[in-house]
Amino acid sequence: MTIRVAIAGCRGKMGKEAVKTVVAQEGMELVAALDYKHVGESLAELEMFPADLDVPIYLNLVQLIEETKPDVLIDLTSPQAVYEHVKVSLLHQVRSVVGTTGFTDEQLEELTQLAKEQNTGCIIAPNFAIGAVLMMKFAKEAAKYLPNVEIIELHHDRKLDAPSGTAKKTAQMIAEVREEQKQGHPLEKETMPGARGADFEGMRIHSVRLPGLVAHQEVIFGGKGQLLTIRHDSFNRESFMDGIVYCVEKVMELEQLVYGMENIL
Amino acid sequence: MTIRVAIAGCRGKMGKEAVKTVVAQEGMELVAALDYKHVGESLAELEMFPADLDVPIYLNLVQLIEETKPDVLIDLTSPQAVYEHVKVSLLHQVRSVVGTTGFTDEQLEELTQLAKEQNTGCIIAPNFAIGAVLMMKFAKEAAKYLPNVEIIELHHDRKLDAPSGTAKKTAQMIAEVREEQKQGHPLEKETMPGARGADFEGMRIHSVRLPGLVAHQEVIFGGKGQLLTIRHDSFNRESFMDGIVYCVEKVMELEQLVYGMENIL
Amino acid sequence: MTIRVAIAGCRGKMGKEAVKTVVAQEGMELVAALDYKHVGESLAELEMFPADLDVPIYLNLVQLIEETKPDVLIDLTSPQAVYEHVKVSLLHQVRSVVGTTGFTDEQLEELTQLAKEQNTGCIIAPNFAIGAVLMMKFAKEAAKYLPNVEIIELHHDRKLDAPSGTAKKTAQMIAEVREEQKQGHPLEKETMPGARGADFEGMRIHSVRLPGLVAHQEVIFGGKGQLLTIRHDSFNRESFMDGIVYCVEKVMELEQLVYGMENIL
Amino acid sequence: MTIRVAIAGCRGKMGKEAVKTVVAQEGMELVAALDYKHVGESLAELEMFPADLDVPIYLNLVQLIEETKPDVLIDLTSPQAVYEHVKVSLLHQVRSVVGTTGFTDEQLEELTQLAKEQNTGCIIAPNFAIGAVLMMKFAKEAAKYLPNVEIIELHHDRKLDAPSGTAKKTAQMIAEVREEQKQGHPLEKETMPGARGADFEGMRIHSVRLPGLVAHQEVIFGGKGQLLTIRHDSFNRESFMDGIVYCVEKVMELEQLVYGMENIL
Repeated sequence: MTIRVAIAGCRGKMGKEAVKTVVAQEGMELVAALDYKHVGESLAELEMFPADLDVPIYLNLVQLIEETKPDVLIDLTSPQAVYEHVKVSLLHQVRSVVGTTGFTDEQLEELTQLAKEQNTGCIIAPNFAIGAVLMMKFAKEAAKYLPNVEIIELHHDRKLDAPSGTAKKTAQMIAEVREEQKQGHPLEKETMPGARGADFEGMRIHSVRLPGLVAHQEVIFGGKGQLLTIRHDSFNRESFMDGIVYCVEKVMELEQLVYGMENIL
Repeated sequence: MTIRVAIAGCRGKMGKEAVKTVVAQEGMELVAALDYKHVGESLAELEMFPADLDVPIYLNLVQLIEETKPDVLIDLTSPQAVYEHVKVSLLHQVRSVVGTTGFTDEQLEELTQLAKEQNTGCIIAPNFAIGAVLMMKFAKEAAKYLPNVEIIELHHDRKLDAPSGTAKKTAQMIAEVREEQKQGHPLEKETMPGARGADFEGMRIHSVRLPGLVAHQEVIFGGKGQLLTIRHDSFNRESFMDGIVYCVEKVMELEQLVYGMENIL
Repeated sequence: MTIRVAIAGCRGKMGKEAVKTVVAQEGMELVAALDYKHVGESLAELEMFPADLDVPIYLNLVQLIEETKPDVLIDLTSPQAVYEHVKVSLLHQVRSVVGTTGFTDEQLEELTQLAKEQNTGCIIAPNFAIGAVLMMKFAKEAAKYLPNVEIIELHHDRKLDAPSGTAKKTAQMIAEVREEQKQGHPLEKETMPGARGADFEGMRIHSVRLPGLVAHQEVIFGGKGQLLTIRHDSFNRESFMDGIVYCVEKVMELEQLVYGMENIL
Repeated sequence: MTIRVAIAGCRGKMGKEAVKTVVAQEGMELVAALDYKHVGESLAELEMFPADLDVPIYLNLVQLIEETKPDVLIDLTSPQAVYEHVKVSLLHQVRSVVGTTGFTDEQLEELTQLAKEQNTGCIIAPNFAIGAVLMMKFAKEAAKYLPNVEIIELHHDRKLDAPSGTAKKTAQMIAEVREEQKQGHPLEKETMPGARGADFEGMRIHSVRLPGLVAHQEVIFGGKGQLLTIRHDSFNRESFMDGIVYCVEKVMELEQLVYGMENIL
């Protein structure tokens, strides 16, 4: 059976890749696009897409659903728009795969409830890179047995914030399974401030910024006489596409809302 | 409650470390040693142990059990001896933690059956390094989502066989969850034979041997635009001790035989 | 003083990047392009370049030199064309920076001789990635003190040949400074053929091929109780641009032909 | 020709290894030990050495020199003693190899002058690990071409100070060849203090402390589209021995004092 897919946010960086991926994917068909520009046109008419990509562009999601009957809506638009899209989709029992963060707790709760009532699957994934999600999942698991851990994340030098969101998320997931513990020697001293990195419940996070780097993270666990290292390297936006395909296939089996890909891997 | 521990094979390299570990471990007490030498003496009399380590040495396991009432026997002796030790232990409902490989399938089956009948826990672990076992477990899990994988194992240059047992075991565990697939370009060509490593069901294994190395392994998964790497470094025999402690504690909760630490992590 | 630069091969992948780089580079000016298409037009007229890039395109190198008086010709065309270009440049005392391999020994000798007679610099660099060239240079240096070495090169799985040209070049450079020596245990045995990689004068080369990888190499030196690892990661074509800029500046100081960036670093 | 070696500080951790190394080294002979204990005895009489190691122990260096005629004195004693030993050695035109830091500038100058007058070689090396010295040397070289660099050093969690001496030394050597430059995004912000590590003239140093680690350092250089990484792993005291052997051989060719192994590699 072919999965009929609609995409919201086709013209964005992620959206463009998603269009390419769905079109190339065996077992999927791209049946519609949701956009506030180029309404009534076809993707084929936009320069960024192949001239034979005859996919209609809709402004109104209800109309899109009624006329093109998608099984899954991939939503890569902004947080404001996404909430409404998911709600409408659920009300029409159309599954959705969402790559946006920024929902309020109330919104999440409401959508979770609605998905349950409608017996309709929905996956909200802040990170579609399967490798990164596995890294976090494994790190959480490893921390149960090897509680001494440090995180090194490495990004290009145009990144503004340190540490990265993924590093913080990893630290939080580790903190859920281990007790807070001060690591390093009790009397250790920084002769140059900052050398030991940022402190999160006793574990240390280090942020490297260099030209040439893309997005990388290493989680290092130390035990007596041994080390366990889990590393993820993301080289480009393509790294999200395997995750989107996985979610589209997986959401077909779901009848509720799932937050975070780690919960379906 | 303190766990009463007996150790078979105290004078071996692993055994010496195990003695040190159990003695230092809160919640454990070393109550007896099993050996064919120094019978009737105390560990304190052997030069390799502290002079205050007053632990009796027995030749006969039944006598040891009756007189010192251990909860757990840690067995680090040779394959030949171990089988008998485990059998006797199970018959007396004494739990055991075993670090030897080399059981025949028949022996394993018999001991498994006996453990069940006696409602007595037993852990047989070919590898006590928690980090290595986690690496293999995670590799098996990751291969479900990222089936393209290569293994690089690195050891000191006095190692005779290539690839290592751990590399083979990892490859087998991965093979259980992915279909055989030829990796690399279909037309790829080795201009120097062996460059692409050993082939195990389409995945490649590379063995590095250098002075300075101890025992290391990297499992690299490649997906579109991303890599996931899981690495274990073992620097010395101490790396097994956390695993032995974990197994001694865990076996207290078991009423059957478990083969491989990956099944209790 | 601004260096006046002409580029041959502007429309190729490397050429396009080189145009962008020279235009953006302080102290350089792009004064002409050499091409067999679009002759008489300006780069501004080609869709791939900015509309304000008013740089004339020539078919004839002599005419280009006479009319635009470049200091340096960057040549990124095919081996056949390059030889003639360099010869003409040298005869007109125009320096050149060349990124093509594939010269015959006779051609190289002739150009070397000509450069000397004309007191004109010329750099022929099979690899413009400064990091890769430094890796090879350092590897050669390190092998003098730590002769036990293995090379791991990692590339995307669309690469046809194994090992990579860079790996072979590195091995050759190392071989120049160390005596041939069989590494590993004298009695070591492959239980799976190919595990120990390719053998080059006793040192081993391993080729990893996975999706997600770009172009990476690790040279690992082992000594008693220590390891030294030199690694280069090349993520995209941009990695060549720093090297081209360096060569253009450096060739201004040269009065002879240099083969290989390692000889001017 | 066999090099006659005397060792001061045989009973220390480094000294014991040095004795073993010199005895096993082809082309070297251990002819005397300098010590303030066991004077008049032979190393064979000390329990820590083999019973056939018939090497006399002296209290007085002059007497040692006159009676055993060493070519080289390896000095692994404390800073206080070393200064006098080197002075006496130089005055008797005996070469020395010294592994102690802690000389004052005046002492160093005096010894340098004395070595020159006596035409006698002397090597003072704060770090005998050849791999570590090469790492620093290469890092200094690489920074000329790739000035964006960060240092990650990783040590066991019983280490008191952060960053390590080697990391500081590396940063200083890099600073000698590059202009101070603030790295990272000009507007970058630490949302958790310390994440970006310690700042040394704009380059960042990160200190990881975990059980299982021994002594490791990674110097990462980033350029457009590429990374160059130089890593050293030191697993145990043996890592110094190749360096001591190298220095003993090298000092035989020297007629002056050299400070730092990087200056003779």
